Amino acid sequence: MHTPEAFDSAFEIRVRSSFAKQGLMSTIGARVTHVAPGEVDVELRFRDDLSQQHGFLHAGVVAAIVDSACGYAALTLMPPDTAVLTSEYKINLLSPAAGDAIIARGRVLKAGRTLVVTRGDAFALKEGEEKLVATMLATMMTVRERGLRD
Amino acid sequence: MHTPEAFDSAFEIRVRSSFAKQGLMSTIGARVTHVAPGEVDVELRFRDDLSQQHGFLHAGVVAAIVDSACGYAALTLMPPDTAVLTSEYKINLLSPAAGDAIIARGRVLKAGRTLVVTRGDAFALKEGEEKLVATMLATMMTVRERGLRD
Amino acid sequence: MHTPEAFDSAFEIRVRSSFAKQGLMSTIGARVTHVAPGEVDVELRFRDDLSQQHGFLHAGVVAAIVDSACGYAALTLMPPDTAVLTSEYKINLLSPAAGDAIIARGRVLKAGRTLVVTRGDAFALKEGEEKLVATMLATMMTVRERGLRD
Amino acid sequence: MHTPEAFDSAFEIRVRSSFAKQGLMSTIGARVTHVAPGEVDVELRFRDDLSQQHGFLHAGVVAAIVDSACGYAALTLMPPDTAVLTSEYKINLLSPAAGDAIIARGRVLKAGRTLVVTRGDAFALKEGEEKLVATMLATMMTVRERGLRD
Repeated sequence: MHTPEAFDSAFEIRVRSSFAKQGLMSTIGARVTHVAPGEVDVELRFRDDLSQQHGFLHAGVVAAIVDSACGYAALTLMPPDTAVLTSEYKINLLSPAAGDAIIARGRVLKAGRTLVVTRGDAFALKEGEEKLVATMLATMMTVRERGLRD
Repeated sequence: MHTPEAFDSAFEIRVRSSFAKQGLMSTIGARVTHVAPGEVDVELRFRDDLSQQHGFLHAGVVAAIVDSACGYAALTLMPPDTAVLTSEYKINLLSPAAGDAIIARGRVLKAGRTLVVTRGDAFALKEGEEKLVATMLATMMTVRERGLRD
Repeated sequence: MHTPEAFDSAFEIRVRSSFAKQGLMSTIGARVTHVAPGEVDVELRFRDDLSQQHGFLHAGVVAAIVDSACGYAALTLMPPDTAVLTSEYKINLLSPAAGDAIIARGRVLKAGRTLVVTRGDAFALKEGEEKLVATMLATMMTVRERGLRD
Repeated sequence: MHTPEAFDSAFEIRVRSSFAKQGLMSTIGARVTHVAPGEVDVELRFRDDLSQQHGFLHAGVVAAIVDSACGYAALTLMPPDTAVLTSEYKINLLSPAAGDAIIARGRVLKAGRTLVVTRGDAFALKEGEEKLVATMLATMMTVRERGLRD
């Protein structure tokens, strides 16, 4: 895959300031740990109030941070004065999300004018080891209308 | 579609007690509003701390409650002494989730011995009107091992 | 769901003439049996040369006709001088596709300016009975550029 | 990812003999070009009778060979006396499938006792260059009952 290019140097600022506006990401304690053209990582510490019924991290939280990582990976390649919306995604949950923290890595597979297709993987961190626990394919949409902007 | 049958009369108790153990559902304020064989509804009031960057309900929250509705719809048809895990799902986000509340309706399409395929729809409620904002196809797995039980 | 409206009365002609250009549909013997705004059905007779290894109809054939039904259901609501392309889909195979024929029903869930989200179901016909064997969620794209037209 | 292990040395024979029984693969001219534990490639030459309405290779054919590559990649890791069935998949079509041939590469991401999760990519070959045109996530099921065997 060739290295994708951002439209301008402000892509990281746009990602971080948009992410900061997400009430949910603040509520669950997620933070952006890596931003590059076509790439964003989001990390989260495990907490009991984010669990499912067996004590693992809830799949909804895993999906939310992988979706965010994919969406912001897409935003890095979008023009200024646009916004990103998730059109759809599919996630396979491979193993229970157990450990100390989880890292979601969003990567752009194909950046079109309107649609940006991304892949995202979630890794559980436990005692320094990474384990793949979920994988996602997501379609992100570049929004040029509706008064939205990221 | 014929009416599916539960294994015993305790299916509603199993759904509600398992749901109560989900830290995340409590954290976001979701509650079960309907349980029948092959059917579960989950409802949530909008809150600012569950938003995405444009002020709508975060897609991750929408997905989490539709996933829960689908998973528990599947559980209503599973034998006692088993547990339900989400194997995978795909969600299409049709419109921004804006309004007063959101209702997720999970319904079983096909209940196999191991896999249960479900469909879930999310409706935004605004001034008494329902609007379809997301739709999901999800595969749930009946877990008979691993010491898990719902 | 409200009844969707086509842009003009030529939608059925556009669907049928575009379908007739698909080499694959002719090769596998599929034909359009119903066209209405937001709705297209495609039917296929079972043939041994379309089987998978256990003698059932190959999932690839099932997916191809459900995808076509969804794509043309979307096309009925698109403006003239545009073309339809499948952006992505997800299919769950619920039961082996066995019987005399299969009917794929594509229906529009949400028609946006660029993206049209559709649902498709495949039913196996055997001795007059219909059985749901697969279900799909698909995103179709309205193409206004690239010299394409349906 | 660690290298997965096959149950016995007959995995390649099982893949090739099962593939040979698929009427559809013969009809469309697909053939297996690579088999290793957790990996199968399927290749196909472009033909006009496999086209969609704009002259590209029909997405249904692309999906069928990626699905086959993923299913047989999963079969390489399954025990003897079992069969493989596709439970579900999701595909994103990234670019029109145009060129001389197409190669589908199926790879196992996670092999569980019952479910095997796979990723598949389709590359169009044109004048010696490979271009990614589609990507898939698929769940394969190990079938131990029903009298099926691959």
